Amino acid sequence: MSSLPLDLLAVAAHRDDVEQTCGGTLLKMADLGRRTGILDLTRGEMGTRGTAEDREREAAEAAKILRVSWRETLDIPDGRVENTWENRLKVARIIRQTRPRVVILPYWKGRHPDHYTASKLGYEACFLAGLAKLDIHRAISSQQSAFRQVASAVASVVAGEEQNFGRGRTSGLAVEGAQRDAALAAERTPHRPFKIIYATLYYDVRPTFVVNITDQFEARFESLMAYKSQFSDQQAGKDIFPARAEIRARIESMARFYGMMAGVTYAEPFLQKEVGLVEDVTAIAVKSI
Amino acid sequence: MSSLPLDLLAVAAHRDDVEQTCGGTLLKMADLGRRTGILDLTRGEMGTRGTAEDREREAAEAAKILRVSWRETLDIPDGRVENTWENRLKVARIIRQTRPRVVILPYWKGRHPDHYTASKLGYEACFLAGLAKLDIHRAISSQQSAFRQVASAVASVVAGEEQNFGRGRTSGLAVEGAQRDAALAAERTPHRPFKIIYATLYYDVRPTFVVNITDQFEARFESLMAYKSQFSDQQAGKDIFPARAEIRARIESMARFYGMMAGVTYAEPFLQKEVGLVEDVTAIAVKSI
Amino acid sequence: MSSLPLDLLAVAAHRDDVEQTCGGTLLKMADLGRRTGILDLTRGEMGTRGTAEDREREAAEAAKILRVSWRETLDIPDGRVENTWENRLKVARIIRQTRPRVVILPYWKGRHPDHYTASKLGYEACFLAGLAKLDIHRAISSQQSAFRQVASAVASVVAGEEQNFGRGRTSGLAVEGAQRDAALAAERTPHRPFKIIYATLYYDVRPTFVVNITDQFEARFESLMAYKSQFSDQQAGKDIFPARAEIRARIESMARFYGMMAGVTYAEPFLQKEVGLVEDVTAIAVKSI
Amino acid sequence: MSSLPLDLLAVAAHRDDVEQTCGGTLLKMADLGRRTGILDLTRGEMGTRGTAEDREREAAEAAKILRVSWRETLDIPDGRVENTWENRLKVARIIRQTRPRVVILPYWKGRHPDHYTASKLGYEACFLAGLAKLDIHRAISSQQSAFRQVASAVASVVAGEEQNFGRGRTSGLAVEGAQRDAALAAERTPHRPFKIIYATLYYDVRPTFVVNITDQFEARFESLMAYKSQFSDQQAGKDIFPARAEIRARIESMARFYGMMAGVTYAEPFLQKEVGLVEDVTAIAVKSI
Amino acid sequence: MSSLPLDLLAVAAHRDDVEQTCGGTLLKMADLGRRTGILDLTRGEMGTRGTAEDREREAAEAAKILRVSWRETLDIPDGRVENTWENRLKVARIIRQTRPRVVILPYWKGRHPDHYTASKLGYEACFLAGLAKLDIHRAISSQQSAFRQVASAVASVVAGEEQNFGRGRTSGLAVEGAQRDAALAAERTPHRPFKIIYATLYYDVRPTFVVNITDQFEARFESLMAYKSQFSDQQAGKDIFPARAEIRARIESMARFYGMMAGVTYAEPFLQKEVGLVEDVTAIAVKSI
Amino acid sequence: MSSLPLDLLAVAAHRDDVEQTCGGTLLKMADLGRRTGILDLTRGEMGTRGTAEDREREAAEAAKILRVSWRETLDIPDGRVENTWENRLKVARIIRQTRPRVVILPYWKGRHPDHYTASKLGYEACFLAGLAKLDIHRAISSQQSAFRQVASAVASVVAGEEQNFGRGRTSGLAVEGAQRDAALAAERTPHRPFKIIYATLYYDVRPTFVVNITDQFEARFESLMAYKSQFSDQQAGKDIFPARAEIRARIESMARFYGMMAGVTYAEPFLQKEVGLVEDVTAIAVKSI
Repeated sequence: MSSLPLDLLAVAAHRDDVEQTCGGTLLKMADLGRRTGILDLTRGEMGTRGTAEDREREAAEAAKILRVSWRETLDIPDGRVENTWENRLKVARIIRQTRPRVVILPYWKGRHPDHYTASKLGYEACFLAGLAKLDIHRAISSQQSAFRQVASAVASVVAGEEQNFGRGRTSGLAVEGAQRDAALAAERTPHRPFKIIYATLYYDVRPTFVVNITDQFEARFESLMAYKSQFSDQQAGKDIFPARAEIRARIESMARFYGMMAGVTYAEPFLQKEVGLVEDVTAIAVKSI
Repeated sequence: MSSLPLDLLAVAAHRDDVEQTCGGTLLKMADLGRRTGILDLTRGEMGTRGTAEDREREAAEAAKILRVSWRETLDIPDGRVENTWENRLKVARIIRQTRPRVVILPYWKGRHPDHYTASKLGYEACFLAGLAKLDIHRAISSQQSAFRQVASAVASVVAGEEQNFGRGRTSGLAVEGAQRDAALAAERTPHRPFKIIYATLYYDVRPTFVVNITDQFEARFESLMAYKSQFSDQQAGKDIFPARAEIRARIESMARFYGMMAGVTYAEPFLQKEVGLVEDVTAIAVKSI
Repeated sequence: MSSLPLDLLAVAAHRDDVEQTCGGTLLKMADLGRRTGILDLTRGEMGTRGTAEDREREAAEAAKILRVSWRETLDIPDGRVENTWENRLKVARIIRQTRPRVVILPYWKGRHPDHYTASKLGYEACFLAGLAKLDIHRAISSQQSAFRQVASAVASVVAGEEQNFGRGRTSGLAVEGAQRDAALAAERTPHRPFKIIYATLYYDVRPTFVVNITDQFEARFESLMAYKSQFSDQQAGKDIFPARAEIRARIESMARFYGMMAGVTYAEPFLQKEVGLVEDVTAIAVKSI
Repeated sequence: MSSLPLDLLAVAAHRDDVEQTCGGTLLKMADLGRRTGILDLTRGEMGTRGTAEDREREAAEAAKILRVSWRETLDIPDGRVENTWENRLKVARIIRQTRPRVVILPYWKGRHPDHYTASKLGYEACFLAGLAKLDIHRAISSQQSAFRQVASAVASVVAGEEQNFGRGRTSGLAVEGAQRDAALAAERTPHRPFKIIYATLYYDVRPTFVVNITDQFEARFESLMAYKSQFSDQQAGKDIFPARAEIRARIESMARFYGMMAGVTYAEPFLQKEVGLVEDVTAIAVKSI
Repeated sequence: MSSLPLDLLAVAAHRDDVEQTCGGTLLKMADLGRRTGILDLTRGEMGTRGTAEDREREAAEAAKILRVSWRETLDIPDGRVENTWENRLKVARIIRQTRPRVVILPYWKGRHPDHYTASKLGYEACFLAGLAKLDIHRAISSQQSAFRQVASAVASVVAGEEQNFGRGRTSGLAVEGAQRDAALAAERTPHRPFKIIYATLYYDVRPTFVVNITDQFEARFESLMAYKSQFSDQQAGKDIFPARAEIRARIESMARFYGMMAGVTYAEPFLQKEVGLVEDVTAIAVKSI
Repeated sequence: MSSLPLDLLAVAAHRDDVEQTCGGTLLKMADLGRRTGILDLTRGEMGTRGTAEDREREAAEAAKILRVSWRETLDIPDGRVENTWENRLKVARIIRQTRPRVVILPYWKGRHPDHYTASKLGYEACFLAGLAKLDIHRAISSQQSAFRQVASAVASVVAGEEQNFGRGRTSGLAVEGAQRDAALAAERTPHRPFKIIYATLYYDVRPTFVVNITDQFEARFESLMAYKSQFSDQQAGKDIFPARAEIRARIESMARFYGMMAGVTYAEPFLQKEVGLVEDVTAIAVKSI
C-alpha cells in the first residue's frame, strides 16, 4: 500500500472518462514523481459496447499506461449516478483511504447526466470526508444490519437491479490483515483535499488553465485505445486504420486547440473555482500579445 | 542605465495610482531581485490638491520606498488621457526603451476615464512597440518639423493649453551622450512585452489571481503616505492621526479582503486575459474546501 | 396510433404551461404538417382553482385547438415534481413510446420549482431513453412486485398521498391488444431525441431564438382560454370582458416583445445549449441594423 | 406569541451562520421596529468544536444580542442538509407558522454543501407554504403512522443515526393549549413570503445591494463572539486577545469592503433575483462618480 | 432661470430619443416636484423625415407635455457623435450650468452608434465637469481664437460641413446680462452629478431597476406623437389611425413587458453600475415568488 | 461590374485575415451561387515579412481560389486602423458601391488592435451608409479641396507617412466612363446591409453558430498558402514540408474543433448580436444529446 496517500486522485463516472479528459495530466504528474489514482464511480455496464468485465481489464491496462498508482471502481449503477447520502459516504470513504492532496472532478455541466452528477457527488464527498465527527465506517456498517437488508432489497428491486453495497471491490480497497487495519484507521481519520479542480474537456467552457501534455500525448492516446471493446466496432472491416485515424484526429484536434491557447502543442483544459495566487508576476506563463 | 531592461513595468494614469493598486507587487518583485519600473502618463496637474511639482517630488520618494529601478512621467494632460496615435507612439517609445517582460496596466473598466483609457492606450502601445517596421523615432521626429509646428499649435490651442511633445522629461529618459545613443538604439529595436496583466483594485471585478503582499504591506502604505500633498488636508487640524487611521483602515480592508480570497493576510488583485498554464497540478495554491 | 412517432414533444409540469410558453410553436409545426405532442407531468391537483378533472377536460379542448396529435398526463404529484429514478423512468418510457425528434422542455431556471425540476427531469429522461441496455419495462415492472408494494406503500404514506405507479393513464398511452404490443415494442427500443430546446417565456433570460407565431397567436390565446376553471374567477361578475382583456394584454405584450426582437409581430422565445449550424449566411433572418 | 407574524425571517444551515452573514441587518430591522426571526436548520452537531447543547445556549445568547423575536432550530442532520419532501414540509410549516414578509436565504453557491442546499430547500419550502391545497399538518402527521415507523427506521439506520421527525423542538414552536391551536391554525393557512433575498457574504459574488450596518457592527460582532465554544480554542493560551483580534480583523475587513462599495463604513451584502422598482430616481443612494 | 439647478438631466443623441426611453420617468419626477431637463446632443438633421427646424418645434412641444424645466440642443453633427475633447467640453459646460443631481444617459450598447457614443461622451463629460482645476470657459474660448479659426475651418471641411462651435444655441443657454453672468459663474464652479443611470429601452439587456410609469404612460406617448414629422409618413393615407395604432402597440408592449417584471402595468427600464443600498429590507418592492 | 451588388462582403484589417477566419464560408457561398467580396482595410505594409506589393499579388491569387467576385484594398495605414470620420466615410462608400446584403466583420475583441478597431469601424460605416441624407461623395470630395491639402499634409507628417486619401485604388473601385457613373450613382444611394455577423476564429469566445466548410477546407487552406511571402521563412531550409505541416496542423485543429461543436468535420465560427428566428423547430441542426 506504498502507493498511498495519493498526491492526485481523478474521479470520473465511467471507465475511459479519465483517459479522455485528464489522462495526460495524470501521466505527467506520475512522470514528476507524484502518486496518482483513478476512481471510476460505475462499472460501465450500460455502455453499448463491451461488458463490465471487458472494461475492467481494459481499465487496468490503461492505468498501467498512465502509470497510476491506484485505481478502483465503485458499484454505483451506470446511467444512474445519484448524489445520495449513500453514494457520498462511499466516495468519502475512498477519499479518506487514499487521502489525495488534489482531486480532479468532471466539470459541473455536461451532456451526460452521470458526468455532471459525479461532479456534485464528488465535491460533497470531499467535504464529508473532512468532518471529524463523521464515523463513515459506522455509518456504512449500519447499512449492513437487518433493517438495511430490507431497505437495500427494496431499493434494489426499485432500481431493477442488484446493489452490492459495501461488498467486494466496492470497499475501494481489497484489503486483508494489517492492510485492512490500516485502511480502517484511515477511514476513521478525517481528510479534506486541499484542492479540487474540474476537467472540462467534454464541455465548451473556457478553461481557467491548461496543462501541457505534449510529452504525454501519445501515451494518453494509447491509454484510450486500450479500451478495445469500445473502439473495436469502429475498427471493424478490412482496414482498421481509418476508424482509428478518425478518433485520433478528433482527440488530437481537441488537445491541440487547448494547447494553442497556451502556446504549447497539446494540452488538457481545467477549471478551478478559486482565484489564483501568483508568487512571481514576471514568471507567469502564456504570452499575451 | 543598468536598471534596464526592466522585468516589470507598471503603467498608470496618475502619480499615486500605482501606489494604490500594485505597489506591493512591485516591491515584492524588487525583493525577489527583479528590475521594476513605473510610467505615469500624466503629471497630475488636475488633482484638486497639490501641484504637479509637489507630486513629482512625492513620486520620487514613493519610488524609493517601493525600490523601483526606473520611474518616468509623460506629458499627457491630466484628465485628458486619449488613445491617440501620438500618445501611443509616446508610450511605445518607452516600452522599447525599457523593454519590460511584463507590463501592468489599469483594468479596462473604472470610474475615472483616465484609468480605463490608459488601459487601452497602454495595450495598443505594447502592440505598436513590437512592429519591426515601425520607426518610432522618425515618426515622432517628423512631428517636430514645420508642419508639425502648425498642427501642434492648432491642437494646443484647441486643447486650451500647451503641449510639449517630445521635449524635456517627456522623452521618457533624460539621456546624454552614450546613454542617448543607447536609448536611440533601443527605440529602433522592436520589443513586445511577453505578458500584460491588469491591476483591478479600483473596480469590483473578480480577479484572476492575487499577489500576496503581506510582507510588503507596510512599505506599500508608506509609499502612499509619501504623497503628502494629497493627504495633508485630511491630516490637517490638531490631530494628524484620525485621518491617517481612516485611510489606513480602508487600504487595509481592501488588501485583507483580497488576501482572504487566497488564504493570505494581504494581497493585491490582478486580471489576465489568457488562460493559465499549470506545470504541476499538485502544487496549485489556494485551498478549495 | 398513426400519430406516432412524433416530430415534436413538449414536456411541461402543469396542464396550461405549454399553452402559455410554446403553444403557438406547436400549432405552427402542426400547420407545417408535423406530428406534435404534449406531456403534462402532473394533473394539476394543487392548483388553487378547479379540480384535476376540470383541467383534464380543458387540456383536451386546448390540445384540439393547438392541433396536437398526442397528449398524455403522468401521475407525478403537483407541487412535488422530483428528479427521481422512478420519475425519470416514467418520462423515458414516454420518450420511447412517442419517439420525438425534438423535445421542448421548460427553461432550467424559474419561479416555480416544478418548472425547473421538470427541465432537469426531462433532460435526464431523454438521456435514459437512449441507453440500449436499459430495459424500462422490466425496471418499471419490478416495481410492481412484492417488495415494490412495501416500498410504494411506505413512500405513499411518507408523501401523505396515494401513488399509482404504472397504473391506468400513467402508462402514458392507453393501449390495448395490437396497440399494446406496439407500445411494448417501442418501449424496448432505445430512442434519443435529436434536439432539446427550452421554452423561456416564464423567465427574463435572453432567448437564443424566437419562433414567429403571428398566424397562430389568436388560436394560442384561445387554447389558454380553454382553461375556464383557471380564469373563471377573474371573469366573474357582471362583465366578463375586463378580466379577459387584462390577461390578453399581458399575453400579447409578451408575444409582441419577443416578436420585436426578430422583426415580426408575435413570437415565442426559446433557448438551445448548442451552437447553431448555418448553411447559408446570406439567408440568416433578423435584421442587424 | 406576540412576536408573530414576523416581518423578516433568516434561514440558515448552522447556528452562527446568520451571525456572520446578516446579523447586522437583522438587528437594524429590529432597531426599526420590525419583528425578526432566525431558523437554523441543523443543531450543529457535526461542528468540530463544542456540542449541540453548547451551541443552543450560545445561539440563544446571540439572538438576544441581535434582538430577534423568534429563533428555532430544526432537527435536520448537520452535514446532511438535503432538499427532500420531508425537509421541505418541515421548513414550509415554519414559514406558515411565522408568516414572514421577507425571507433571507443563504446564497445558492458556496463552499459548504449545507449552505447551498439550504438555499434551494428554503426557496422551495417558501413555494410550498403558499399552496392552498397543501395540508402540511396531515402530510407530516401521516409520517408518524405505522408505515412511517418502518420507513423512518429504515431511513435512520441507513443514515446511521436517529431521526426524530415531528417530535419535540422539531415542531418549530414549543406550543401548548391555545398557543397550540393558533399554531395549528396558522399551519393550515397558506402563506407565501413577498420577498426572498440571499445573503452572499460567504461567496465572492457581486451583491445586488448592501445594507449599511455601521451602527450595528459592534453588536453583530458580539453576537458572533457569543459562540464561545467555536472560538475558545483560538482564544486559548495566556492571551485571549490576539485570536479575537484576528477574527475581528477579518470580520471587519469584509464589512468594510462591502461598505466601501456603497460609501458607508460597514455593510452586509445581499442578492435579489428580481429587478428593482425605484420610485424616485433623484433619491437613489450610492454615488456614481 | 429659476428652473436651475436641475434635479435630473436626461442626455440623449437625438430629439425624440428621451421621449422613447425615459420620458415617463421625467414626467413622474416632475409630478413629484423635481426640476428636470433634457439635453439633445444633435439637431437631428440626418433624420430621414423632417428638418431640424421641424424637430426643434416638436421637441419644444414634447418638453411641455413632459413638463421638463429645461431643454437645450447642442450642435454636434447628427450621425457623427464623437467622444472628442471638444464635445466633452461642450457637454461638461452644460453639466456645470444645469448642475443636475442625477444624469440619465443612453445605455452603452446599442444599434445606433450615436446612442452608445453619447453614453461614453456623457459619462466623461460628467467627470470633467467635476475637475476643480478645469476652466471650461477658457478652454472653449481659446478655441475661438485665430488658430482655432484655422483648425475649425480645416475640421469643417474635413467633415464636409459647417461646425459652429460655441455659437448661438450651442451655448446651451441663451443668456443675457445678469443671466449671462450667472451662467458664467456656474461654468466656473465644478459640479459632478451624484448619480448616473442608463436608459436601456433600446437594448435587450436586463435592467437593474424599472420605474413605474403607469400614471405617466399616456402623456409619454403623446410626447412622442408630438414629433409629427417623424410619424406623419406612416400616418399618411386615408386612415391616420392604423399607423398610430401600430406604433402605440409597440410602445405599449415594451412598457408593459418591463412593467410585468416588477408587478406594475407600465414601466421604463434602467441600469446602474453601482450596487444598491437598501435601508429597510422589509420594504423592498417587487414580489419574489 | 456584373459582380455587384454583392450578397456577402467580408471586411478585415489585413490581407490574409479573411483567409484565416472566414475564407471557407466565402467559398461555400460562392459555391451556392452567391456573389462575395473582400475589403481589406490596409495594405499590410507593417507585416514583418514581404512587401505590400507581394501581398497584393498574393491576395489576388487567394481571391481567385476563394472565387470571390470582388476584392479591394483601402489605404488605411497598417497598424493604425482608427475609427475616424474619414475612415468611416471610406468604408461607407464601399458599402454603398458594393451593396452587400450581409457583412462579415472581425469580432470586437482580439489580440491585434487593428482587428477589433476594424470591427467597430466596419459597424459604424454600415450604419452611415444607410443615412439617406449623407452625401458621401461630397463629404469626401471636400477633403480634396485646398483646406484639405493642408490638413492632410499635417496629418501625413504627424503620421510619419504619406496618406493618399481618395486616390488610385483607394477609391475602392477602379472605375472609368460608364462604370464610373454607375459607381457614383451607387455612392449617392443609401444602403444598409441587412445583416452583420462577426468572424470569431481569432478569439476564444463561444460562437453563436458555425458554418460547415468540410468541402471547402482544402481550398481555404490553399488560399492561405497563396501568401507565400508570409510563410516562406517558415518554409525555408532543405525541407519545405515540416513548416507547412505545422501550419496545416494548427489550421486543421481549429477548423475541426469548431466542426465538432456542430457534428461536422470542419467549420468556421461566427457570432451574431441578434436572436435567431427559427421557422421549423423540428429542423434545427446540431444534435443535443
